[in-house]
Amino acid sequence: MKHKTVMNNPSLFRLIKTCPDSSARAGELITPHGTVLTPVFLPVASQGTVKTLTPEEIRDIGLAMILANTYHLYLRPGIDVIEKVGGLHKFMGWDGAILTDSGGFQIFSLAKLRQLNDQGVVFRSHIDGSEHLITPELAIQYQESLGADIIMVLDECSAYDNSFEKVREAMSRTHQWAERCQRVKKRSDQALYAIVQGGVFPELRRQSAEYLISLDFPGYAIGGLSIGEPKKVTFSILEETIALLPENKPRYLMGVGSPEDVFESVARGVDIFDSALPTRVARNGALFTRLGRINIGNAGYAGMGQPVEPDCDCYTCRTFSLAYLHHLFNARELLAYRLATIHNLRFVSKLMQNMREAILDGTFGSFKDEFLSNYQPTDEQARLAQKQKWLKSRQERGEAPL
Amino acid sequence: MKHKTVMNNPSLFRLIKTCPDSSARAGELITPHGTVLTPVFLPVASQGTVKTLTPEEIRDIGLAMILANTYHLYLRPGIDVIEKVGGLHKFMGWDGAILTDSGGFQIFSLAKLRQLNDQGVVFRSHIDGSEHLITPELAIQYQESLGADIIMVLDECSAYDNSFEKVREAMSRTHQWAERCQRVKKRSDQALYAIVQGGVFPELRRQSAEYLISLDFPGYAIGGLSIGEPKKVTFSILEETIALLPENKPRYLMGVGSPEDVFESVARGVDIFDSALPTRVARNGALFTRLGRINIGNAGYAGMGQPVEPDCDCYTCRTFSLAYLHHLFNARELLAYRLATIHNLRFVSKLMQNMREAILDGTFGSFKDEFLSNYQPTDEQARLAQKQKWLKSRQERGEAPL
Repeated sequence: MKHKTVMNNPSLFRLIKTCPDSSARAGELITPHGTVLTPVFLPVASQGTVKTLTPEEIRDIGLAMILANTYHLYLRPGIDVIEKVGGLHKFMGWDGAILTDSGGFQIFSLAKLRQLNDQGVVFRSHIDGSEHLITPELAIQYQESLGADIIMVLDECSAYDNSFEKVREAMSRTHQWAERCQRVKKRSDQALYAIVQGGVFPELRRQSAEYLISLDFPGYAIGGLSIGEPKKVTFSILEETIALLPENKPRYLMGVGSPEDVFESVARGVDIFDSALPTRVARNGALFTRLGRINIGNAGYAGMGQPVEPDCDCYTCRTFSLAYLHHLFNARELLAYRLATIHNLRFVSKLMQNMREAILDGTFGSFKDEFLSNYQPTDEQARLAQKQKWLKSRQERGEAPL
Repeated sequence: MKHKTVMNNPSLFRLIKTCPDSSARAGELITPHGTVLTPVFLPVASQGTVKTLTPEEIRDIGLAMILANTYHLYLRPGIDVIEKVGGLHKFMGWDGAILTDSGGFQIFSLAKLRQLNDQGVVFRSHIDGSEHLITPELAIQYQESLGADIIMVLDECSAYDNSFEKVREAMSRTHQWAERCQRVKKRSDQALYAIVQGGVFPELRRQSAEYLISLDFPGYAIGGLSIGEPKKVTFSILEETIALLPENKPRYLMGVGSPEDVFESVARGVDIFDSALPTRVARNGALFTRLGRINIGNAGYAGMGQPVEPDCDCYTCRTFSLAYLHHLFNARELLAYRLATIHNLRFVSKLMQNMREAILDGTFGSFKDEFLSNYQPTDEQARLAQKQKWLKSRQERGEAPL
């Protein structure tokens, strides 16, 4: 394993400006693979590929950092394979920044399949049912072999409906594991972020933040949100947790990615986001527009010669009509999923860029009001029902959430 | 419908050189959408998309003309939709040359579903079972609305095992239909090619060639080959048919696309090819190399850091390892199909380019010997069995061959 020291201060965060009317911040993450402007959205590349796209397309969309998943890559193709060909950047042909999740969330989503103790977790592969052990030490070893710029501690995620006592236990274990991760970490060119847990209980969130802050990590993720709870709860817990975190460290809200939620979270002080939502809904034909999502499968688009958004600068909108996209989806042509993915990711990427400029210009508040007054979010009840249905169906099929 | 006259001599063919040792020819097709160097291979875009690729990628691969299918586009999205948004070139964002097949082959592959008389064919959609009429006049009307550079007559295709009498009847009908197509054609910027039929009967091939030559079409396709007959028969009929065709007109062999078959057919004087084979086998993980096809799914490729072909200049080989491609196929990631398609099409495109240069240099014979001595073709028996199985399974599912 190579432990090349690229810089002394891995993935350093520099806070540039905070909005006077909200908690929104503009900053930058300096990583061994380039400077990443924040707030930033990370597209999901669980299996070492942002589904349908090449690295050049990801870059053209304006995305500087992607998220890969240790759980998926450990099972397939195997950490050793990626190490052998020179690490994850080289394997997937991506020279931008990478953040790897430890896989904790994926393993704990497969609730029926695991055995858990303080040492670690025994889980079954969602691919072939084989049994595997993961420990905090192994999670770090694997992530050092993959070689991402930012790596994550192994954490235990509670479910939304877990009792106070159960969430407290998971949180305590997460704290012990974070410490063990920190202790065994060797590479100085990777930044290890901790994950604040504590469910929907403000008292536990406080304990978790204080404990992890005392260990002085270079970044803090907020875990255990957006897992089925009502949005009001998400934002209330988010606000209380962020208030406890240090100003000079980046804050990473895991698994949030709808335009409206990202906006609300930036306003509350989040710097980093990841979510499979923009790419997943794209493959289902849901395309982002300034007025909200449209479903390209609707018959009304069959004869429309204009692009999805006339002033969108993405490749899809510059080149193709609604009619063509409708046809590709209707005929289940593989190009459909790619063109939709490009549009949705460019929409989110451009939104992040515009939010950052508004923060720097001091116009974030009015930009937010304008955007949200136009953007029709997916109906809350429909969204919740859809998400729970999706999580359940994946669990029944033995699949890991992406 | 627009009938803009772009040029007086649509898709003119210019013969530049014929190989002294074989019948191989180098030439060019001058079309309203650019000059196409021959011999040329057309990738298949039946539904208005070369599966997985953007127009820019097709162009980068070195492909100047593509094949779309009137049958598919008539059923979905509908000819009227494409006409409304400005024609097929605009609809699919492709400014290179297009050839549209009339759909005869697809309709006659759905043998159980048709009612045939001299007027035309009633067929059932493979999508929803609805009934439709196609006549020679409608085939031209639809192709004029689509606006391809080269369009095809409606022909009746016999099956490989049809009797002499049945093949003769189909041939006669094809001749009447070709004449009707020619009569109703209005656009002067499109070249209408005839299709020589006659099955595996040399006498019928002679009658067909002579009749169609008397009508003076600007190009001649050879239909009804590569539909399940042994390769020896294919090449023998091909040779006899080509000997009957005029030197100064382009010859188009429909549905042939394996590297070894293309090579043998160029040597016999074919100028234009189309086939779904390179793209279809790519999506199944079969990649072309100078030694023959490899199956990227084989476990041996899992840890290989080198590209598919070290000296291949395609995007896939310049960017990714065998290990990464193996992983993408293994994980059924959508990017896999795209990267494999790019490689196979570039392999065929480069081969056509090298053949043309060899014809111009007078080295075609030695180039052919060298290529075929290295290239291990797919086993003849295996190929035949696989093709018949595939045709049968598509027919059983009620699908049109692509």
